[in-house]
Amino acid sequence: MNPSLEAFSQRLGHSFRQRELLVLALTHRSYGADHNERLEFLGDAVLNLAVSDLLFDQYDDSPEGDLTRIRAHLVRQDMLHRIALSLGIPAMLRLSEGEARGGGAQRPSILADAMEAIIGAVYRDAGFDAAQALVRRLFSPLISETATQAWAKDAKTQLQEWLQARRHSVPEYRIETTRGRAHDQTFVVVCAVASHGVEARGEGRSRRAAEQEAARIALERLSAEHE
Amino acid sequence: MNPSLEAFSQRLGHSFRQRELLVLALTHRSYGADHNERLEFLGDAVLNLAVSDLLFDQYDDSPEGDLTRIRAHLVRQDMLHRIALSLGIPAMLRLSEGEARGGGAQRPSILADAMEAIIGAVYRDAGFDAAQALVRRLFSPLISETATQAWAKDAKTQLQEWLQARRHSVPEYRIETTRGRAHDQTFVVVCAVASHGVEARGEGRSRRAAEQEAARIALERLSAEHE
Repeated sequence: MNPSLEAFSQRLGHSFRQRELLVLALTHRSYGADHNERLEFLGDAVLNLAVSDLLFDQYDDSPEGDLTRIRAHLVRQDMLHRIALSLGIPAMLRLSEGEARGGGAQRPSILADAMEAIIGAVYRDAGFDAAQALVRRLFSPLISETATQAWAKDAKTQLQEWLQARRHSVPEYRIETTRGRAHDQTFVVVCAVASHGVEARGEGRSRRAAEQEAARIALERLSAEHE
Repeated sequence: MNPSLEAFSQRLGHSFRQRELLVLALTHRSYGADHNERLEFLGDAVLNLAVSDLLFDQYDDSPEGDLTRIRAHLVRQDMLHRIALSLGIPAMLRLSEGEARGGGAQRPSILADAMEAIIGAVYRDAGFDAAQALVRRLFSPLISETATQAWAKDAKTQLQEWLQARRHSVPEYRIETTRGRAHDQTFVVVCAVASHGVEARGEGRSRRAAEQEAARIALERLSAEHE
């Protein structure tokens, strides 16, 4: 195995018995007839199960809907892209000259696909347990952060559903104040639920985040009042 | 374990170390707080990987798009429903009285979900290899039939794409003859590709099937002419 593949294997934490699988996983379809798309097909399914299993254990009280939501956040392209960058995949990819010149080694979709193909390659090389161990190493640090996002993101939907179930009108959101400079702002948003005379304030680094926080607080108050 | 659970395990071909997992997998959410939805979440992912792996081996020359298409046909609800019936799951389900009276034990979605939950239960009980063995026993007999359907179904799309890529107009389909009685008919459909003067005949038990067959034959002729 050439030195850079060897070093890459070490970063992955998996030593390939069949090194040709790793090479294939790093080969984009622009490079030639043998490329990583079949391994990506397999790796996508391996990743999905390995992440499902992690969540099943870690959130042993959460209903299926929450697990599905967190999983969707974990296996999406930008997450795989981040991990691919942290492993230094761009320098390892085999692309056609044209694709390489066009910046293909930095394209999020190409990197995310290669990341899935690598997971598929480990699975073929050494079975599910080895692939699951890889996924655990790569994804465990991201789970709690992602779960928080996935839940927070849903506060607006939850609030709306809560109100609709009781046939009340939808809440209104307005920005109360904005602090800080252009790329370092903090937003304060008010979520007003007219039917219940509730006004909740949420703060966040984006308008969206502030709205979610405000919705979460409004929902807490409404739930407490109605217990 | 009670006798019917014992017999059911034997039909599955898996002897549970943790029998409570099997009971949980057979428990619909209408029955109580502990139900099979989390196991279904897991089983869905197990099934997806196990089927992907089977297809990866069995169709070792097929591109990723074909594998994805066959997989989608294999893991859909009506396939799971068929398997659930063949295993006698309706008699094993635990449903609320209301759900049972309403015919819940025959509902395809409830049966398909329970089937996935059972696959998840085997996975939790004995790991991926045991679950994969179960999926192989249940699904292997269906693969070649399903693959044929998945491919055949796509002949019309393939023909259309072939013609569009060459900027020719779309083919026309017409029924030439219909034989047999109402519920036992055979259709003969002609697929006419005006731009190439090609008329191909396909026979099938439905208009749709006959069209697909005609499209497949037309595409074969066009491809042969253009090699």
